[in-house]
Amino acid sequence: MTRDGIPTPALLLDLDRFERNLARMASHVRTAGKHVRPHAKTHRCPEIARRQIAAGALGVACAKLGEAEVMAGAGIRGLLITTEIVAPPSIRRLLRLLAEAPDTLVVVDDARNVADLGRAAGAEGHVVNVLVDVDVGGRRTGAQPGAPALALGRLVAAHPSLRLRGLQGYAGQCAHVVGWKARRDASHVAMAALMQTRRLFESAGLPAEIVAGGSTGTYDIDVELDGLTELQAGSYCVMDLDYRRIGGREGEAFTGFEMALTVVATVVSVPTADRAIVDAGLKAFSTDKPFPPEPVERPGISYGFAGDEHGRLAITDPSRPPRLGERIEFFPSHCDPTFNLYDRVCAVRGPEVEAVWDIAARGRSD
Amino acid sequence: MTRDGIPTPALLLDLDRFERNLARMASHVRTAGKHVRPHAKTHRCPEIARRQIAAGALGVACAKLGEAEVMAGAGIRGLLITTEIVAPPSIRRLLRLLAEAPDTLVVVDDARNVADLGRAAGAEGHVVNVLVDVDVGGRRTGAQPGAPALALGRLVAAHPSLRLRGLQGYAGQCAHVVGWKARRDASHVAMAALMQTRRLFESAGLPAEIVAGGSTGTYDIDVELDGLTELQAGSYCVMDLDYRRIGGREGEAFTGFEMALTVVATVVSVPTADRAIVDAGLKAFSTDKPFPPEPVERPGISYGFAGDEHGRLAITDPSRPPRLGERIEFFPSHCDPTFNLYDRVCAVRGPEVEAVWDIAARGRSD
Repeated sequence: MTRDGIPTPALLLDLDRFERNLARMASHVRTAGKHVRPHAKTHRCPEIARRQIAAGALGVACAKLGEAEVMAGAGIRGLLITTEIVAPPSIRRLLRLLAEAPDTLVVVDDARNVADLGRAAGAEGHVVNVLVDVDVGGRRTGAQPGAPALALGRLVAAHPSLRLRGLQGYAGQCAHVVGWKARRDASHVAMAALMQTRRLFESAGLPAEIVAGGSTGTYDIDVELDGLTELQAGSYCVMDLDYRRIGGREGEAFTGFEMALTVVATVVSVPTADRAIVDAGLKAFSTDKPFPPEPVERPGISYGFAGDEHGRLAITDPSRPPRLGERIEFFPSHCDPTFNLYDRVCAVRGPEVEAVWDIAARGRSD
Repeated sequence: MTRDGIPTPALLLDLDRFERNLARMASHVRTAGKHVRPHAKTHRCPEIARRQIAAGALGVACAKLGEAEVMAGAGIRGLLITTEIVAPPSIRRLLRLLAEAPDTLVVVDDARNVADLGRAAGAEGHVVNVLVDVDVGGRRTGAQPGAPALALGRLVAAHPSLRLRGLQGYAGQCAHVVGWKARRDASHVAMAALMQTRRLFESAGLPAEIVAGGSTGTYDIDVELDGLTELQAGSYCVMDLDYRRIGGREGEAFTGFEMALTVVATVVSVPTADRAIVDAGLKAFSTDKPFPPEPVERPGISYGFAGDEHGRLAITDPSRPPRLGERIEFFPSHCDPTFNLYDRVCAVRGPEVEAVWDIAARGRSD
């Protein structure tokens, strides 16, 4: 199959750019003396996870147990599930997962959950690898830094069926701060709470061999932290408009990674001279960001959502009107929820489709 | 399985409400002397389509060829594909679909597309049932009403491999006008263009036995039009927050149909006294509307998106704080893209799960 023969709308991965992104991240963390465990919630695709690991990643992070089940089933190891697992049926599923992938790491932020996990693991003879999840200002999950996190760490360490491995602190509020210096300042403030908690763990003789955090936005900021051992950036492998705009160390462009993910659409209607309609709407692109998809190397048009299955192209250069049947690629505004709309991604190199990969964990938010 | 045993986040369909919605629409169109061909882009679920047809629907409308392929494969007939099919590989797929479901209707808004469709159908000995798609002010697809649509109708009627059946005009801009009278005024203006075009067709001796249009918002407005033969409302079967707010004929409440679709989530973190985190974020709910999901019969909290996999509950009544592990249901803001995030919907009646239905056309925007 060639790129031009793919039915639209479809998700395309530019392999040259993707491979450069993986190589750059690998080189970056190696130089910094750190590791990366990329967040697979971005792509939910075992083949991408496999390639990240082949490029040196420790494994992959998963937002949810359902994602981890798919990754484990595909042979991926070194999993870290970054959201707390609390419901009793979910804890039972986790134990089945551990039978297959015993090195899987989970996170906790609640004493009762620690007890529930420990009891269930003990009953089946498992030992669960645990990180204490610390709220570093993102106001999402996580124990409060300092004494509350330390108390939780002691509980984990004291349980014979749990093995404390360290800490997780994800500063989501810093990831998209525009301007590298402002982002660095924000991340330093946030991550200081994690570093202070790590020191408390060490003083108390608690293990902190793993301290995980960081985003694509702070990939070249958080590695400055002595106490951080691994990044859990996700979007870097494909990028998106939301990350492209945040600015980089050297100036206004975020040059760390390349835009490797596009959606290809077809012009299905040119009803008047001033507009054209493509077959990709809000079921083809993420819609959670305040800016629309952007045409790739196709000047003279701009995109606006026009319902579930349609996008309206405004014609900004009348000398280049869209033609009926024309194929146009667009960068999505947010890669993670865009991947989650598709069952497959077409891995392309120039005009050729080299492979089609299953997004096997798509929809596995459970 | 019981409702409380479903892994979260999950999509639930309240069968009692859903069945009443189907019965109400069936009775409504029967009383008005019209038909309904519900838009299956809402649910993408063959079992729901089957039940709509069992309740008297002519078939179902599909936004895309991919959806129609799934519906046809599941034995659904009476399909209308509401978006133009223009790419040559798509036209070839359409012809394969017609071999299975020859009564399928397609729409056209372009003379070259009429020629392409006709030539391809002729080469394989098919006759394709065609509606002329008319732009009734939605500024999406569709020939301009009046003379341009008439000219297109003549082209279709003149082609030996195409069979002109009538017209489609979808006034998406009217569907969510708040206030019944304002919505009625808007729809009358929009649909007047379709009715005038219908009269032109009749004067010219062109067939117009099918004139399709209308939305859930205008279901009790467009049936007043003598020239309209069938509604293509979709959301009515499950409803959503965006439709609930538009107001009804008798007052501020839209009472025509009931809210039958929810997403059930679990509280996975209660890190502080003033917030709780559920396991449903922007991969669990539609995000294209400016208002968030709403808790169902669970006072004391409000929901805010907190990333791909998390929702943040603000606690508005401190006497009812969310408990770790508590299950909470939410109404999504927009039903169509919410269905499109899930592989299955759990059909529940009270505490029991009666069935689990595949959303088999999920992701089939191609």
